[in-house]
Amino acid sequence: MKRPPRLEIPRKAIYRLSIYLRCLLRLKANRLPTVSSEALARAAGVKSTQLRKDLTYFGQFGTRGLGYDVEQLAQLITDLLGTNSLQPVILVGVGNLGTALLSYRGFEQEGFEIIASFDIEPRRGRHSTKPLLPMDQLAAFVHERGVKMAILTVPVTAAQEVTNQLVAAGITGILNFAPIVLQVPEDVIVNNVNLAIELENLSYFIQG
Amino acid sequence: MKRPPRLEIPRKAIYRLSIYLRCLLRLKANRLPTVSSEALARAAGVKSTQLRKDLTYFGQFGTRGLGYDVEQLAQLITDLLGTNSLQPVILVGVGNLGTALLSYRGFEQEGFEIIASFDIEPRRGRHSTKPLLPMDQLAAFVHERGVKMAILTVPVTAAQEVTNQLVAAGITGILNFAPIVLQVPEDVIVNNVNLAIELENLSYFIQG
Repeated sequence: MKRPPRLEIPRKAIYRLSIYLRCLLRLKANRLPTVSSEALARAAGVKSTQLRKDLTYFGQFGTRGLGYDVEQLAQLITDLLGTNSLQPVILVGVGNLGTALLSYRGFEQEGFEIIASFDIEPRRGRHSTKPLLPMDQLAAFVHERGVKMAILTVPVTAAQEVTNQLVAAGITGILNFAPIVLQVPEDVIVNNVNLAIELENLSYFIQG
Repeated sequence: MKRPPRLEIPRKAIYRLSIYLRCLLRLKANRLPTVSSEALARAAGVKSTQLRKDLTYFGQFGTRGLGYDVEQLAQLITDLLGTNSLQPVILVGVGNLGTALLSYRGFEQEGFEIIASFDIEPRRGRHSTKPLLPMDQLAAFVHERGVKMAILTVPVTAAQEVTNQLVAAGITGILNFAPIVLQVPEDVIVNNVNLAIELENLSYFIQG
């Protein structure tokens, strides 16, 4: 069953809104009440025409000559992204990278809490205060806690099989670190992060 | 001074070549000598027309009806990416995320070695066998070891200043984890990874 998105906003525009939000939160921390579209666009590294186009998703916004209300725009974007409250996330695969991410505090600062991790060998992780559970408890946990998002840090050989388990359990958003293209139903979103591929990409462009 | 790239290959095509390479290495591990463009495209999650277009960067390639020679194609891509030998990388900013990445073994498996890390407080890291050095030794180290790539995991407030130091030292490729748009000269490449933004993006799309 495919859920229609509430607004037809492309994925790249959503990424840019996330970046605008971070710029706005810095301005707010510096007690700046308003910002011009030119200044905000510059801070976000986009053209101001792009910024203005992206903000039309919120309808009429900003007062000519006065710029945007920093706090109001930050709140609009936060509402749209659905990050008003701390969101529960599970992490699956507590190897090197999984352990590393469990010890990273950055997610909570940004509104996401890893409430549990799962592994086929649940004794090997020691870097988190949150429960580390065996895979056979995953489906019940996800259902009971209403979790929708998972961070996938299993080896590439296990990634598709574990993804099938996640989807069956009701996960609809996967942040995938395994270097493989996951096959998922249409109503499940996968965002891929591959650190080695990012380095490889740099490697190509820095060659003399 | 701007260095022209050796070939006019767009960044997205380079990402796809990285993915083809991973698929080819899996085929090689499974002792498969050849692969059809359809099978390789399916494994990489692209259309076979896209794959064939991407491989035209290597000139005439593949024998009609026989598919691609797995080992030969893997070698061609590796040569192009410049990852034939272990490449030295430095990591700057040994906080939570920096420490996490230092303990991650995945980079070396993929051809990148973090040979040293740098921090303004070089006593706080304990997770690596590689030297952790103060920032004032960065320029000399980079010059002496001929390092071109850096992983940047400093706080957002320090990111631009540290980037300026990296560029002045001769770094030309930066993998940036700070949620900020870095200003760099034209001949320096920045790839951005923002894990919180990836989660935020999922968060938008999974809302019911």
